[in-house]
Amino acid sequence: MNDNNIKSWKVSLYKIIFEADTPLGKAFDVALIFFIMFSSIIVMAESVESIKYTYGDDLLVLEWFFVIIFTLEYFLRIITVHNKWKYIFSFYGVVDLLTILPAFLSLLVPSAHFLLVIRVLRLLRLFRVFKMVRYVEESGILLKALKASRPKITVFLFTIFSVITIVGSLMYIIEGPTNGYASIPESMYWAIVTITTVGYGDISPQTALGKLLASTLMIMAYGILAVPTGIISFELAQASKTPVTTRTCPDCALEGHPPDAIFCKKCGEKLL
Amino acid sequence: MNDNNIKSWKVSLYKIIFEADTPLGKAFDVALIFFIMFSSIIVMAESVESIKYTYGDDLLVLEWFFVIIFTLEYFLRIITVHNKWKYIFSFYGVVDLLTILPAFLSLLVPSAHFLLVIRVLRLLRLFRVFKMVRYVEESGILLKALKASRPKITVFLFTIFSVITIVGSLMYIIEGPTNGYASIPESMYWAIVTITTVGYGDISPQTALGKLLASTLMIMAYGILAVPTGIISFELAQASKTPVTTRTCPDCALEGHPPDAIFCKKCGEKLL
Amino acid sequence: MNDNNIKSWKVSLYKIIFEADTPLGKAFDVALIFFIMFSSIIVMAESVESIKYTYGDDLLVLEWFFVIIFTLEYFLRIITVHNKWKYIFSFYGVVDLLTILPAFLSLLVPSAHFLLVIRVLRLLRLFRVFKMVRYVEESGILLKALKASRPKITVFLFTIFSVITIVGSLMYIIEGPTNGYASIPESMYWAIVTITTVGYGDISPQTALGKLLASTLMIMAYGILAVPTGIISFELAQASKTPVTTRTCPDCALEGHPPDAIFCKKCGEKLL
Amino acid sequence: MNDNNIKSWKVSLYKIIFEADTPLGKAFDVALIFFIMFSSIIVMAESVESIKYTYGDDLLVLEWFFVIIFTLEYFLRIITVHNKWKYIFSFYGVVDLLTILPAFLSLLVPSAHFLLVIRVLRLLRLFRVFKMVRYVEESGILLKALKASRPKITVFLFTIFSVITIVGSLMYIIEGPTNGYASIPESMYWAIVTITTVGYGDISPQTALGKLLASTLMIMAYGILAVPTGIISFELAQASKTPVTTRTCPDCALEGHPPDAIFCKKCGEKLL
Repeated sequence: MNDNNIKSWKVSLYKIIFEADTPLGKAFDVALIFFIMFSSIIVMAESVESIKYTYGDDLLVLEWFFVIIFTLEYFLRIITVHNKWKYIFSFYGVVDLLTILPAFLSLLVPSAHFLLVIRVLRLLRLFRVFKMVRYVEESGILLKALKASRPKITVFLFTIFSVITIVGSLMYIIEGPTNGYASIPESMYWAIVTITTVGYGDISPQTALGKLLASTLMIMAYGILAVPTGIISFELAQASKTPVTTRTCPDCALEGHPPDAIFCKKCGEKLL
Repeated sequence: MNDNNIKSWKVSLYKIIFEADTPLGKAFDVALIFFIMFSSIIVMAESVESIKYTYGDDLLVLEWFFVIIFTLEYFLRIITVHNKWKYIFSFYGVVDLLTILPAFLSLLVPSAHFLLVIRVLRLLRLFRVFKMVRYVEESGILLKALKASRPKITVFLFTIFSVITIVGSLMYIIEGPTNGYASIPESMYWAIVTITTVGYGDISPQTALGKLLASTLMIMAYGILAVPTGIISFELAQASKTPVTTRTCPDCALEGHPPDAIFCKKCGEKLL
Repeated sequence: MNDNNIKSWKVSLYKIIFEADTPLGKAFDVALIFFIMFSSIIVMAESVESIKYTYGDDLLVLEWFFVIIFTLEYFLRIITVHNKWKYIFSFYGVVDLLTILPAFLSLLVPSAHFLLVIRVLRLLRLFRVFKMVRYVEESGILLKALKASRPKITVFLFTIFSVITIVGSLMYIIEGPTNGYASIPESMYWAIVTITTVGYGDISPQTALGKLLASTLMIMAYGILAVPTGIISFELAQASKTPVTTRTCPDCALEGHPPDAIFCKKCGEKLL
Repeated sequence: MNDNNIKSWKVSLYKIIFEADTPLGKAFDVALIFFIMFSSIIVMAESVESIKYTYGDDLLVLEWFFVIIFTLEYFLRIITVHNKWKYIFSFYGVVDLLTILPAFLSLLVPSAHFLLVIRVLRLLRLFRVFKMVRYVEESGILLKALKASRPKITVFLFTIFSVITIVGSLMYIIEGPTNGYASIPESMYWAIVTITTVGYGDISPQTALGKLLASTLMIMAYGILAVPTGIISFELAQASKTPVTTRTCPDCALEGHPPDAIFCKKCGEKLL
């Protein structure tokens, strides 16, 4: 095998692993989605005491089966990719490593409980697959809308954070540690639980004044909750609009022709 | 009675049972809505211990009254419909059978508690009635909007599911079984309860780090909750827009000209 | 005093009491708002054990002061209004009566606890005042939007109700009375608490299957919650739009002129 | 140093402190943001028992460090500002004073627990900084949308308040003090907790009738929650719309012509 052969072999392997335009590339992606999901379910199952007790050994075998596959995949990625270091230190490179590292580390540090759970981060790898399989369009519009609304969301989040801090501090004075508001951070946690309308009820106001302040916060939360929805709803409409304003009729100068128009809808002149 | 007579008799019965354009067909539908609702209320009433104890026998009589009516209706449907097997295995055919089967099965297996509750599925039959009585237009717009937003919703649900899994796993590490987070699925259940802002409070974070992560999740939930609302709000506006599809070019037959168009935007022909 | 004098005196009194265009009419309305609000606060205050114990007598005096004023007002309304019986049996006529009746009835039946609370319904009278003082425009748009979205909301509510009944019944089978799901209505109550994201936590799923079903319901609630918001948001936009489509240029036939346009914006022709 | 020098020195100091267009002004703002945030974190940390016990002295030193800086800043603001009394009694002037006063007062009244928490109000000062650093545009649109929706929101809030009072009173009759609904204000607190979908669960209906009313309230809350979102979503779209006010008629000076207008819609004059 000469150098050229290895190169072309590498390129076709690269296309299978990193792209999804060829049948083999698609098959690889589908298999990967299956492996990632199934191995994540194993991590979850392992955490259930009763399942681990009964099927612990089977889960361990399956886990190592997946780890070996993911390890192979990881090295194939390193081999086929052009800029190896860039890949290794990229976001997905690190996620790929975190997918397999905990299993190997658990051989050295057997009781590393939390290490094993980190494996669940392999779910993040799914986003790469989706990125390839042309789901981008839709998430593109969503991301565009979210990005466009970032300055508004920033102002909004800052206001929310101020409200949380101030209401939290007031509740700490009003209710105090005897009623469960042990400290300002604890009171802020309560304010967040309330303003987001989650309302666990682990901490709740006991005094009349506290209930009044809490009620005010909740009514405010109403209007506040409406703001991000309104923002995203609006930005989504903006992001999804077809660009109709760029084309102008050379004869009557009417603006706003849709992208598929060939003739001006007003004077019938051919558009440029 | 000759064959023809039976046929015409079948057709008119079909029109009464399956359609709602004739006065009798409408009366049949109204009666059916009443029977379905009343019989569903009986199923509910039966499940209340005190009511069952006092009025158990009356409820049983009423239930069998409805079952006999629904059985008659079921057989009339089979008799009058043209493609019998297609009906029997259709969605509503199965629902119609589930409406009456549990009652008959309970004669054989008297203690089949859960069988009796299945009868509540007869509520699904109401959707068929609504389908006939021209309520479709409105639900049509809703369905159109929901269908149009499916790809966006899919991306959205996948993101949500990843967030739930990852946050759930992290909480399992941070809080652990001693604080109620017994396993990763249990922690994911907590994450769902939190991210949807339901917040039962049956499980809630106890440690400072857990509360911090929970707070982050709740603030995120804010923005996240806004996304589907924004999507549906936008798609609804799209689906409800005045139909621009009524005008057709007399030359090239292109449809969907806006109301202010004078010339076809594709071929330049004057529109009528 | 002749008949005519009484008539004109009645008319001017009618204008003061039922309308709000004259200075006296406005003053009457402002006084009424104050009386209604203050007397409602007294009903509330009376229900607080400690306040009633200390200030019980003062509250009683104030209450009777308001009852006498409202009784006077009620009889003035009957005297001045043209169609007396229509007023008495109108919505606001009944509310006006309910405002004063409980106080007089409590003289006969002293322990009629619930009667006294009915007095809080006098708050409903505020809506009449608002109706007069030109706040209608804004609430008009809101009502218009709500009315326009009624068929969509009906379809939506019916779907919600079916989901609640079916999920409630399933939870009753899965969890059963031992886990707090005592009956189907009770389970439906839980389903409502969950689907509206209120989440008291007085009943919450205990089994794995129940938690799975609850999680599905919550995720569904996400999308479901978005529908009415989307509907109202859309209808509000429709209701607020200035009607621009009715006027057409007599020369160039351009449609959609705003109501304040005098000349066609395209050809400069005077609009009709 | 002559008078003129002092004046120019004052002016440049004023520009640094009150404005943010010069490099020094920007640096001052960034430093201020850092100081405000860090000193707020100290207030929070101080409220946590364990942290105060261990690092109490360090926190005290840091706190006084910030108080001295803020005091210096306060006096510099007074010196450089033209209209001194107007600044002192302005909103931010009072907030600036509240930032430093509690620390000095705590020297006189050592146990003034609540005074120290007031220091958290210094967070409000951040809004002034943001006001300067050109974040106004975005918050401007938000404020514009909120202001435009004020009359709608007022009608909405009044309706909500009436619903809360009436449902709260009814629940007080239905459930009564034995089930936790101790008084009408308490029941109104429950109604607010429910209608905003917070749902702590500290008070929840126990009787069948109470649960029915609560369910009705929750389903209503669905639709109600949609209203402010719809309002803000709509007003935001209005506020963000391309400004149609730039074109002015050369003849009658009417503003606000749409971009496709050729002639003035009021006087028929050709637009430029």
